[in-house]
Amino acid sequence: MTTVKFVKAPTLKEKPDVSKIGFGTHFTDHMFEMTYTTGKGWHDPQIIPYNNISISPANATIHYGQAIFEGMKAFRQGNKVVIFRPLDHLKRLNNSARILDIPPVDIELVHNALRQLITIEKDWVPNKRGQSLYIRPFIYADDGFLGVSVGKSYKMYIILSPVAAYYAHGFAPVNIMVEDTYVRATKGGLGEAKTPANYAASLHAGLVAHQKGYDQTLWLDGVERKYIEEVGSMNILFKINGEIVTPELDGSILSGITRRTVLQVAKEWGYPVSERRISIDEIKDAYKKGVLEEVFGSGTAAVISPVGVLGYKGEDMVINDNQIGPFAQKMFDYVTGVQCGAEKDTHNFTEFVTEV
Amino acid sequence: MTTVKFVKAPTLKEKPDVSKIGFGTHFTDHMFEMTYTTGKGWHDPQIIPYNNISISPANATIHYGQAIFEGMKAFRQGNKVVIFRPLDHLKRLNNSARILDIPPVDIELVHNALRQLITIEKDWVPNKRGQSLYIRPFIYADDGFLGVSVGKSYKMYIILSPVAAYYAHGFAPVNIMVEDTYVRATKGGLGEAKTPANYAASLHAGLVAHQKGYDQTLWLDGVERKYIEEVGSMNILFKINGEIVTPELDGSILSGITRRTVLQVAKEWGYPVSERRISIDEIKDAYKKGVLEEVFGSGTAAVISPVGVLGYKGEDMVINDNQIGPFAQKMFDYVTGVQCGAEKDTHNFTEFVTEV
Ligand SMILES: Cc1ncc(COP(=O)(O)O)c(C=O)c1O
Ligand SMILES: Cc1ncc(COP(=O)(O)O)c(C=O)c1O
Repeated sequence: MTTVKFVKAPTLKEKPDVSKIGFGTHFTDHMFEMTYTTGKGWHDPQIIPYNNISISPANATIHYGQAIFEGMKAFRQGNKVVIFRPLDHLKRLNNSARILDIPPVDIELVHNALRQLITIEKDWVPNKRGQSLYIRPFIYADDGFLGVSVGKSYKMYIILSPVAAYYAHGFAPVNIMVEDTYVRATKGGLGEAKTPANYAASLHAGLVAHQKGYDQTLWLDGVERKYIEEVGSMNILFKINGEIVTPELDGSILSGITRRTVLQVAKEWGYPVSERRISIDEIKDAYKKGVLEEVFGSGTAAVISPVGVLGYKGEDMVINDNQIGPFAQKMFDYVTGVQCGAEKDTHNFTEFVTEV
Repeated sequence: MTTVKFVKAPTLKEKPDVSKIGFGTHFTDHMFEMTYTTGKGWHDPQIIPYNNISISPANATIHYGQAIFEGMKAFRQGNKVVIFRPLDHLKRLNNSARILDIPPVDIELVHNALRQLITIEKDWVPNKRGQSLYIRPFIYADDGFLGVSVGKSYKMYIILSPVAAYYAHGFAPVNIMVEDTYVRATKGGLGEAKTPANYAASLHAGLVAHQKGYDQTLWLDGVERKYIEEVGSMNILFKINGEIVTPELDGSILSGITRRTVLQVAKEWGYPVSERRISIDEIKDAYKKGVLEEVFGSGTAAVISPVGVLGYKGEDMVINDNQIGPFAQKMFDYVTGVQCGAEKDTHNFTEFVTEV
């Protein structure tokens, strides 16, 4: 394995009690950095001390938002450290790059550098089930002038953050509000990319949902305000009459790696699985008929997030008596089991990085 | 007038030949800075040396895009420096703040600080007609953790950039492509705000338009792909059969200050003016009937930008023989005249700041 230049931090930080910190609030001692200059391409990959970044006040991303990111996790399995589906995440980074006209990265180089970084920071990977080291690669246009145009220079970083189990108080259902006023992304927009614009567009609706007592927003399509898209940071799946159903990838939602994992495993377990347009009316109908058996989100942060209440236009559908459904529970146990090494990883979802 | 703390730059830069530099590439010696902390509100307004900014690698704006900005101009009028409609721009900044859930600023304080900053930098305001000092206020969420949520801390800056006349080779028509694949902003989205998300969503379409030989993109609505919205950084106006027509402010386009200026002046000149939905089919029809007399953009950068060619689905409409129309010419002369002091400013569009 080729390695990149490594500049060691002069002092190392004290590691926090991961069970007591918020998501994404603490970072490890080092980060990966790489620079893109037109004419030179991506250059100077290196691992350097975690530190503030210096940008021009005219920085293209602060003004015009040309940036992308990824989110994946490393886990402890006994004395081993593994990453969950790293290559799938890096490929998605390059897909986001394509959509935002950011020059793609050399996946092999970044993959190796990520492995090197995790190896350096292996003591930061928490050892309790559910805890993990969250991995955040990101790229932003770094030009320092005020023209609305595709950047000529970029920075890429990978930062690492130890995170607690998502369900600090135990695996439990969430309340979700179907959003019918605001739109996160629409066909022809940036919905398929992991890019700041989509998250900026979700902030206000998130506030409104909270004020109404819901945890998150379920987005509808921007054109007909009828077809189900995804949750703020999760894909959404339904179990209707024994079938696992989820919105198709139509360009306006993220192709979740957890979604992919769940669909593959569900098929292997013998469930009928369907990716297609699903209208909110179909969901209401299924609910009325008593065949809406389960609703759950899928994403790197929570893995599986059972939905207990789905609110739409002021009316609440209570799903499975506001209890975790058996499918969601089984899938959560399986995937988190693969991640922590309790389940045999027959799909090679996890990739061994280093011993601790 | 109250003043804010001023830290003078130890050395001053050499001023560039403004006629030879690109838009937004050079900045003055100082900038305005203000900080927001939850509990404390906006505090520590000050004018400090223009310098790079330090952000956390987990900066909320780089990852989730919670930011807004403004763009206005200061001009020389003989030995005086004026700003064009500063309060309207600052009010629009607060409107963008509302949409992005950013705490609003005290307009009076910022207005005074801007006047102080311009007074300090008065020698940077170029003296040739068409040249100006571009003023870029911006605010971004400055939190350094990876949660998708409304920020708890913000920074505001105002930076200044001397800019050449937009029409370096003389006032001339541009070619515009009506975009039917990509969507910039849709109803329920962020289109009414000056926020990075909208510009990020416009980058790829801009590239495609350039490749096809057009200068800019004219956006259609995201729902029906039928109604005209605005250009990448301008509003759009039509002169149809003697009437000045422009898309109504429906929440998905920016309420341009130049648009407002043009509509007001056109009414005073006795033109019928209408703000309403305009479909691309209506424009094609008017073109075929020979009543599409003029098409032009309006914005701070160019003031008026006559459109010579409007391309839609591979067919070009040639407007007014690809010549500047008389209305666009008259409006351009009038507004730039008010800005440079050649026309009497009966509306108080310009605000006196200082003598040089
Ligand atoms: C908008 C959005 N959708 C879906 C997901 C789920 O994707 P994944 O399973 O790859 O984490 C995420 C978060 O990662 C997201 O931000
Ligand atoms: C998207 C967009 N529309 C319209 C405008 C024109 O607005 P104004 O006349 O206030 O400059 C701008 C630029 O300022 C813009 O960025």
